[in-house]
Amino acid sequence: MNLLLLHADDFEGGPPSGSEEARASVRGRRAEHVGGIHRAELGDDLRVGVLGGRLGVGRVLALTPGHVELAVRLDREPPEALPVRLVLALPRPPVLKRVLIHATSLGLKRIALIHSRRVEKSYWQSEALSEKTLMAQLLLGLEQGGDTVLPRVTQHRRFRPFVEDELGAFLMDAQGFVPHPDATVECPRDTAGPLTVVIGPEGGFIPFEIERLTEVGVQPVNLGSRVLRVEAAVPYAIARLT
Amino acid sequence: MNLLLLHADDFEGGPPSGSEEARASVRGRRAEHVGGIHRAELGDDLRVGVLGGRLGVGRVLALTPGHVELAVRLDREPPEALPVRLVLALPRPPVLKRVLIHATSLGLKRIALIHSRRVEKSYWQSEALSEKTLMAQLLLGLEQGGDTVLPRVTQHRRFRPFVEDELGAFLMDAQGFVPHPDATVECPRDTAGPLTVVIGPEGGFIPFEIERLTEVGVQPVNLGSRVLRVEAAVPYAIARLT
Repeated sequence: MNLLLLHADDFEGGPPSGSEEARASVRGRRAEHVGGIHRAELGDDLRVGVLGGRLGVGRVLALTPGHVELAVRLDREPPEALPVRLVLALPRPPVLKRVLIHATSLGLKRIALIHSRRVEKSYWQSEALSEKTLMAQLLLGLEQGGDTVLPRVTQHRRFRPFVEDELGAFLMDAQGFVPHPDATVECPRDTAGPLTVVIGPEGGFIPFEIERLTEVGVQPVNLGSRVLRVEAAVPYAIARLT
Repeated sequence: MNLLLLHADDFEGGPPSGSEEARASVRGRRAEHVGGIHRAELGDDLRVGVLGGRLGVGRVLALTPGHVELAVRLDREPPEALPVRLVLALPRPPVLKRVLIHATSLGLKRIALIHSRRVEKSYWQSEALSEKTLMAQLLLGLEQGGDTVLPRVTQHRRFRPFVEDELGAFLMDAQGFVPHPDATVECPRDTAGPLTVVIGPEGGFIPFEIERLTEVGVQPVNLGSRVLRVEAAVPYAIARLT
């Protein structure tokens, strides 16, 4: 947790709109983390941010197990979003959780989870896709990356309708790339401007799916002969492309 | 498992030295995977490789639960190693396991696990550092990346003696880089030649440690204001630098 993420209702009367000091009261996991893992003490200054709002500093006024009182000053905007959108073939639930944290900590603000031939249908029944569990990962990602602005995550349980009817609008004016071991074009580096990265399932997209993606303007690119796990492929592809 | 990794003693009389066909007999986890997850059938051609040796094809001759018989032909060399060495502040055990898989699948052949101020001392007692468990992750990484050549992993339980006495030889003629949020030099892209990447613990290296690393020629570089989890930082930094 590189940032203590405060919610509007942690403040009496809501978060401060200017740079004046405000009191916040935090309980539960976040308070345990501050006291236990960070070993914060009275008077310490913690990096804080308000969900959807600004960053600043919170001075510890009171600290008991499971409860922290802070004097908060907010003085700067959250970091700029990374202009990258992610389309991700739904991985198995524990991998999904980690990928959501990684993508959020990297600063992505738009993630579409899609079906594909090699996605196990049972994954769509997972509790990892509940609003509550998705949100928990996104919050961990914001805390990791020092950000306050949640990504939007959508679920698309049919490949072809998503690609044919929705992906065009999703791409907008961005370049789209899908790493694929058979691609003849080497993955470009340091692309300028917004982009969309499409990451297939373990086992890869089938040729039919690559064809449909190509038809709507997503370029298959080669990242080398080695096939990475999804959770490594996401940061690897984004680092290479941006 | 993108590659079925065969061991010398899976072959009667050892693996073939030329391109002649040889019989291999596989049991245990690998056989379960071939039959269960890959749903291989009699006559299927599987991608195989011999640990430390060449790649080729194995035709399924017999398949029962927990046992696979293959007719193996080896016809090509494993992919080239990635000329990147990794120095990694020991992460907590489950993260270590995943990072070893990622690094191995990327083609790294040399990994040094080191202590640092913000590494929990108890991590050094973990069963994840036993030869058997380390080897299990490296084999998973080879299977993932389609490679046969194991990386060498060493453990260094004292930061300063490692950096002052061993890191110079470890670097050899390679450039060394350590991602660090306070670094003023932006992380270079697409560096030519061999390099060493030094990845700190969650919470980062302390200033003293960055100074010692800098003294032996490791350059602190900035990967942006966002701090990534170790398991995302490793593929991210390697993709950016190579």
